[in-house]
Amino acid sequence: MRNSLTEQLGIRYPIIQAPMAGGVTTSELVAAVSNAGGLGMIGAGYMTPQQTREQIRELKQLTVKSFGINLFVPNDFHHCEKEVKTAQALLKPFYKELGLEEKVFSLPTKEKTVATFKEQLQLIIEEQVPICSFTFGLPTVEQIKELKKNKITLIGTATTIEEAERNEAAGMDMVVMQGTEAGGHRGTFSHEAKDGYIGLMSLIPQAVDSVNIPVIAAGGIMDGRGVSAALCLGAYAVQMGTAFLTCVESGANQVHKEAILQASADDVVLTRAFSGKWARGIDNRFIAEMKGNEEQLPGFPIQNTLTKALRGAASSQGIPDFMSLWSGQSPMLAKMQTVHELIETICNETKIKLNIS
Amino acid sequence: MRNSLTEQLGIRYPIIQAPMAGGVTTSELVAAVSNAGGLGMIGAGYMTPQQTREQIRELKQLTVKSFGINLFVPNDFHHCEKEVKTAQALLKPFYKELGLEEKVFSLPTKEKTVATFKEQLQLIIEEQVPICSFTFGLPTVEQIKELKKNKITLIGTATTIEEAERNEAAGMDMVVMQGTEAGGHRGTFSHEAKDGYIGLMSLIPQAVDSVNIPVIAAGGIMDGRGVSAALCLGAYAVQMGTAFLTCVESGANQVHKEAILQASADDVVLTRAFSGKWARGIDNRFIAEMKGNEEQLPGFPIQNTLTKALRGAASSQGIPDFMSLWSGQSPMLAKMQTVHELIETICNETKIKLNIS
Repeated sequence: MRNSLTEQLGIRYPIIQAPMAGGVTTSELVAAVSNAGGLGMIGAGYMTPQQTREQIRELKQLTVKSFGINLFVPNDFHHCEKEVKTAQALLKPFYKELGLEEKVFSLPTKEKTVATFKEQLQLIIEEQVPICSFTFGLPTVEQIKELKKNKITLIGTATTIEEAERNEAAGMDMVVMQGTEAGGHRGTFSHEAKDGYIGLMSLIPQAVDSVNIPVIAAGGIMDGRGVSAALCLGAYAVQMGTAFLTCVESGANQVHKEAILQASADDVVLTRAFSGKWARGIDNRFIAEMKGNEEQLPGFPIQNTLTKALRGAASSQGIPDFMSLWSGQSPMLAKMQTVHELIETICNETKIKLNIS
Repeated sequence: MRNSLTEQLGIRYPIIQAPMAGGVTTSELVAAVSNAGGLGMIGAGYMTPQQTREQIRELKQLTVKSFGINLFVPNDFHHCEKEVKTAQALLKPFYKELGLEEKVFSLPTKEKTVATFKEQLQLIIEEQVPICSFTFGLPTVEQIKELKKNKITLIGTATTIEEAERNEAAGMDMVVMQGTEAGGHRGTFSHEAKDGYIGLMSLIPQAVDSVNIPVIAAGGIMDGRGVSAALCLGAYAVQMGTAFLTCVESGANQVHKEAILQASADDVVLTRAFSGKWARGIDNRFIAEMKGNEEQLPGFPIQNTLTKALRGAASSQGIPDFMSLWSGQSPMLAKMQTVHELIETICNETKIKLNIS
């Protein structure tokens, strides 16, 4: 079954590059991962249909190997004027500090995110992307049926045993189990309780015992030790984000990479101040100053839109204080290296267990 | 170095039974673990000096093998009359429901907990207990010096990289790294942030890279998969709590064992409602109903004393609603079995990696 997973994904090593949205997964990064024997993934969560299609086509020029794409499943969300006003008032001093007009992007609507998602699914079928993964929920029964008819391998994301079972029941071919260690947004879609965050040491074996589809381990895995451990626990592959984020080929801002390379594990916290959804990253001034108010902020993707100009300006000015410095709980294991070096080192460290000839 | 750890602890297998306080670590359980080749540990955190001495002597009748003891390092705490009154008002309906007089044990004082701790240290030296571990902090420089002079092997507990470094600097011989997966009380002593809870997949390799003393992995480890994974990550041994709690020999209440055996990983939550210190266990009515108020409760050990009669009555009446059903995040891997069966199964599952002749 382990062999069949790599076979089904068309890859040599059971290493998947996490589909980090927001500019990290440049075609250079994704192609480097696929060309090195892993599975490169486009993080298309924030992309327009046109951007999505363009990157798929660009990527096809850079690799003949298998690759995948990730989409955000649209959430139910409500626009509450009062929440938005509160959030804007809280954000105002930060905008001012960066010398910005309080530029407000037009707020997203449920209809628009659903329409974008549908268009993305359609073009993925048209472009014959072999693998598609989902975060924040499950596509509809019809959408899953259509994708399967087109022989696209489907990977779901779960953070609890119940979510793993729902992924299996919906027909996902594999499921990424996201441990509490994981950086960036929590993929949780059936409950919001922080207390429910489960570490991989617990999450993987219990998920493996609960579902019959292959389980992929995600969270804090950075080197051969983590890959070996995940396979011992019963995972069929690993999905690594932070380890690829600091690679030379990644599109992450240099300031973001430096913040991870200099951080301790103790500096990584959970916040919903950036996007309205809980996410893990390196603690900074914005997170600290919003701490007392984060529960009252609007949900995703409203809050994400409200902070977009702030994050953008901080990024382009190289100010880490107001950037979302997503990171898993293992920043001390991060290195600035090429994708090839990262994957080769892991393979050398785990030679016997990966059974590489 | 891995051999030297088992040698130093005088055990055959790198498996330590977590020193669960509050009646779980009966002499029968501790002796069974030591006799099966692991390290049995007395959880003496809530014991009087006399009870501590009695159990050590009882245990010596049941095993000639190595064993250890765990003490709670006294915390700084303040008695705030207003907090106590608030907590008592919140607890009143529960006491009433169980038909109890609102029996208040005399509240602990810092002086008294410090005096108890000193007496425990003294008798551990007198009784020549070979191994002593600590939770909730570090003994004083003088205390550590005295224990070392008496050739007692010292094991600290840490939940962050900073705490691991403080344990090493203080002269601990080894350190238990408690992952977010762990059941019962968080051993955290340098910060209280929930967000800082680190999963073992991240905590172990980063701790191993940060300190030069052997690291012991604790949290969610229940079977050969977990033990193998922990060793892959660089741990020299594992400490298992929940896996031993449901064993036949454990002194845990049958209702507690059943609650674990029937729980899903998704049912495990963090609460400070029982003791004033964050701890992990199976969600129940008491946790749920105290949820909104838990931040305003007094700290440990005040709140622990305020709920003592409630927990005691619930236990003796077999009512899980008001019991502290401590559990790690892997309850679905728990089995009702003997200690011998648990340890033998793990050894069979991990034969090669444990290098057992």
